[in-house]
Amino acid sequence: MSDILENLESTIRQRRDADPSASYVASLTGKGRAKMAEKLGEEAVEAVIAAVQDDKAGMTGEAADLVFHLLVLLADMDLSIDDVLAELSRREGLSGLDEKAARKG
Amino acid sequence: MSDILENLESTIRQRRDADPSASYVASLTGKGRAKMAEKLGEEAVEAVIAAVQDDKAGMTGEAADLVFHLLVLLADMDLSIDDVLAELSRREGLSGLDEKAARKG
Amino acid sequence: MSDILENLESTIRQRRDADPSASYVASLTGKGRAKMAEKLGEEAVEAVIAAVQDDKAGMTGEAADLVFHLLVLLADMDLSIDDVLAELSRREGLSGLDEKAARKG
Amino acid sequence: MSDILENLESTIRQRRDADPSASYVASLTGKGRAKMAEKLGEEAVEAVIAAVQDDKAGMTGEAADLVFHLLVLLADMDLSIDDVLAELSRREGLSGLDEKAARKG
Repeated sequence: MSDILENLESTIRQRRDADPSASYVASLTGKGRAKMAEKLGEEAVEAVIAAVQDDKAGMTGEAADLVFHLLVLLADMDLSIDDVLAELSRREGLSGLDEKAARKG
Repeated sequence: MSDILENLESTIRQRRDADPSASYVASLTGKGRAKMAEKLGEEAVEAVIAAVQDDKAGMTGEAADLVFHLLVLLADMDLSIDDVLAELSRREGLSGLDEKAARKG
Repeated sequence: MSDILENLESTIRQRRDADPSASYVASLTGKGRAKMAEKLGEEAVEAVIAAVQDDKAGMTGEAADLVFHLLVLLADMDLSIDDVLAELSRREGLSGLDEKAARKG
Repeated sequence: MSDILENLESTIRQRRDADPSASYVASLTGKGRAKMAEKLGEEAVEAVIAAVQDDKAGMTGEAADLVFHLLVLLADMDLSIDDVLAELSRREGLSGLDEKAARKG
């Protein structure tokens, strides 16, 4: 599973300049940053609802939509999912120490 | 970078049953599904704002928060990030075909 | 301006049972509570973006959308905008006292 | 109930310049537009969850929070709730005609 995000990110970057009539990514990119951000927000709302309804199949789909639109937005900001994963890894290191310290305390 | 999500997911699952005073994951888990979903929604709003403000450092942090809380929510629903990645991979296969068909049309 | 909300609420309640092909309210009502809630969330995201972009004309429109969909959702829950205004009035009374106390302190 | 919103709006405008340690409105105003927008988004997420959970008491409180933070944001943008009500009234006029036309059609 490990390189799906990297592959998807690479595909999204390639499609940004594609024909908007043939590519959702190109079409959304053409609408600008605010529209991409709006889509992220909408997908998050749908994920929130699926979670509260305990709809597992729905949640899988909404989480996929959320991650996809996050990648679209990151690409538009010249950021990579690797930047996000590095930040998560950095925090995890810190919080690992925190939790260890807390457990000792 | 590839196994950071899997490692983080594994850590989150372990911490769900930890002492809530020592673990944010345990504390949030104790508050229930709706509170976890609420946090996901809040982090998405913050990511939307960072994106519209073109705040790259802010976006990296908010995207990390968003992914972290998505993993917490997935764990609570007995779903895995691999389920989400598999769904993304499945769609990508479909949309690859779609885009090819559209380009030919 | 004062009775616009009450009039709009009354109109929304009447339209819930209208022909869904002729009435947006009836159509949205037919899709169920979760879809109405989703629309509220989406309009909020759009209002957030208009606010951050300092888009006054956009904000007026998004705020109107937000209030409209809030009324639709309240109607579906057998709640009235008057319940919400009464709650705001109750809090305002409390916080008026709070602020006075704080200013004296 | 009719002038609660106007009264609340007037109070909010007065408090914007109050001592932030004594007034929530002044404190939030001091944090800037993005933070006010973030609060609106958060309250919307909480209203979405209350709606999906069919929590009527919760929804009344969350709707009050949502309207309150909408008024705070409007004040920061030099907009009035009357601008929003006028927009709703204008649309209602249009959609009244639309629905009549549709019913005749």
